[in-house]
Amino acid sequence: MLSEQEHPNHAGISGARAPTGSPVISVDAMGGDLGPAAVVAGCAQVLREDPALSILLHGDEAQLAPLLARQGDLAGRCILRHAERAVTMEDKPSHVMRHGKDTSMWSTIEALRSGEAHAAVSCGNTGALMAVSMLRLRRMEGVNRPAIACLWPSRGKYGFNTMLDVGADVKADAPDLLAYAIMGTTYFRNGFNEPRPRVGLLNVGTEEHKGRAGIKEAHDLIAAHQETGRYEYIGFVEGGDIPSARVDVIVTDGFTGNVALKTGEGTAKLVGDLLRGALRSGWVSMLGALLARGSLDRLRQRIDPRRVNGGVFLGLNGTVVKSHGSADATGVAAAVRLAAKLAQSGYQGRMAERLVIAAQAAQDAGPEGVAQ
Amino acid sequence: MLSEQEHPNHAGISGARAPTGSPVISVDAMGGDLGPAAVVAGCAQVLREDPALSILLHGDEAQLAPLLARQGDLAGRCILRHAERAVTMEDKPSHVMRHGKDTSMWSTIEALRSGEAHAAVSCGNTGALMAVSMLRLRRMEGVNRPAIACLWPSRGKYGFNTMLDVGADVKADAPDLLAYAIMGTTYFRNGFNEPRPRVGLLNVGTEEHKGRAGIKEAHDLIAAHQETGRYEYIGFVEGGDIPSARVDVIVTDGFTGNVALKTGEGTAKLVGDLLRGALRSGWVSMLGALLARGSLDRLRQRIDPRRVNGGVFLGLNGTVVKSHGSADATGVAAAVRLAAKLAQSGYQGRMAERLVIAAQAAQDAGPEGVAQ
Repeated sequence: MLSEQEHPNHAGISGARAPTGSPVISVDAMGGDLGPAAVVAGCAQVLREDPALSILLHGDEAQLAPLLARQGDLAGRCILRHAERAVTMEDKPSHVMRHGKDTSMWSTIEALRSGEAHAAVSCGNTGALMAVSMLRLRRMEGVNRPAIACLWPSRGKYGFNTMLDVGADVKADAPDLLAYAIMGTTYFRNGFNEPRPRVGLLNVGTEEHKGRAGIKEAHDLIAAHQETGRYEYIGFVEGGDIPSARVDVIVTDGFTGNVALKTGEGTAKLVGDLLRGALRSGWVSMLGALLARGSLDRLRQRIDPRRVNGGVFLGLNGTVVKSHGSADATGVAAAVRLAAKLAQSGYQGRMAERLVIAAQAAQDAGPEGVAQ
Repeated sequence: MLSEQEHPNHAGISGARAPTGSPVISVDAMGGDLGPAAVVAGCAQVLREDPALSILLHGDEAQLAPLLARQGDLAGRCILRHAERAVTMEDKPSHVMRHGKDTSMWSTIEALRSGEAHAAVSCGNTGALMAVSMLRLRRMEGVNRPAIACLWPSRGKYGFNTMLDVGADVKADAPDLLAYAIMGTTYFRNGFNEPRPRVGLLNVGTEEHKGRAGIKEAHDLIAAHQETGRYEYIGFVEGGDIPSARVDVIVTDGFTGNVALKTGEGTAKLVGDLLRGALRSGWVSMLGALLARGSLDRLRQRIDPRRVNGGVFLGLNGTVVKSHGSADATGVAAAVRLAAKLAQSGYQGRMAERLVIAAQAAQDAGPEGVAQ
């Protein structure tokens, strides 16, 4: 999660839209594993924290109205938009694109497209959300494949690294990976005020001759665009470098990135559970755990995947945050908070600018440039 | 690491070689990040534990002889084989295949091929080790791409899952993934006495329509061979399932598997380091940590990557264990211990048998079967 402190300067614009001090977030209430109750509770939490925020909540009115009513005084700032149907985790993206107009997901993105909202959040089916977002919001100039970026707890000075793509598309060619480098570093620069983020390309070894066909081409292309992209390219990185202090932005295709993200989350959760188990094994350990409780709580919070909930879709004309399907109220709140921060930052405009400059540079350099 | 308890029945054969109660392990002393001293210390540790074991140690005699002399009484059981050169981490596998005859790595594999040793261990360049092993030991019938299998700490009843390929080849076609399922389950069955291991195919979603081109073909092929392979196929699994209790053997290509392995190791290490830091922040926490020390030590040991050091090359006519390049004496000892266990088990013969049966079944079924 990008916290207040980590996003220091937020007087900006959302995408190409007008600046706003009162962001409106469009939220899909349906499609999360825990149902609409978790989404409504998460929204209510953020609305109570941030009096300037409003929410457009999309979904089944019959279910949502009573849930909202229970939250009392927020009625005026959380407006319901009835949608007949919800996209399920089993729905194919192509089917939702053709027949999904009456779903809460479609309605959520539509409010962003029309300019009513400044950012959108959904816990639903990732593939369908990306498909609907691409169809309605369209890709930025110079972007062939949009990407999902996530924040990863790290040893670096900002406490987080950014990785992309973590699941928008299972494939990425060399020009896509270059676009990811540009988008990821703009996002990181904006989030952490780091003038020249360091980019690494994920590979199975740090030697230049290793890796898949095509990865060497991406390596050369990303290296060649360091100046236009305003980043420092450190070359290949390995899985173990993802949480390291030697890199800020890790670039990879959406298949590898998604496996890495889920492996990292799964491993952190396993270690956390084993730790909890270990500290309950006998009363001496329990007493020790009690004494060390403050420190352990801070650690738990630091590695809690709910705190960094929210993959951001990059490369579209509009800010869409994909929350974890299994997000509870805390997770949903984190995703809505991220969307609100991004809506008020100027990263979308700066990203579009960088991509156009890079595309221009590639065109000037010759036929082998950024695709599209 | 497969411990004594986890490998219950070890009166068997190593590959197609004669049974042995006194395994000879061929160890490459050069090429590890910490130099030959760590390798010699690790070997000495295992030799002291296991009086039946002998070691053939390959490398620069001028460096190794004094290191060995310091270990005192082991001289008779650790025989030096001088090799003029060492393979470096920068050497290309193809170069080593053509010009590597005088290297310690080549000599290590050659001792296995000739039958002098029953298993081999190296901390060196993975790509070169695989290339030399394939050239000298040859692939088993029915195997197009050999794989590297690792053990992964898990919530399952055996405490470990197996994943392959974690880095032998960056590509894997559907028939390769089927061979990995057969090899991985034979290895797991042998290691943990589990009659019918559960196989999962690593993907970005558990839905059937998701994932890369070709992965659906592998899905169908692995499902169709459940009976001949004597495993249960549970379908697609995600990164978060790798340490879970719902699967025993995780099958994937070597690019994805290597990234996942290193991401998992990196994450576990990060969490461990953060925990250590947290427990040193203030004297109350330190006192708590002191009281909980026994439990924390057991946890640390459980997730210590050195304990599970050793990727096993599967699909070759001979047992080769690849130790982590950065392994210290404890890590090297773990790899040598694993090699000794495997040398005494019968898994190689049973694996060859299963692969032939599957290839036969595929041939009977029609033209689309196991490759090669």
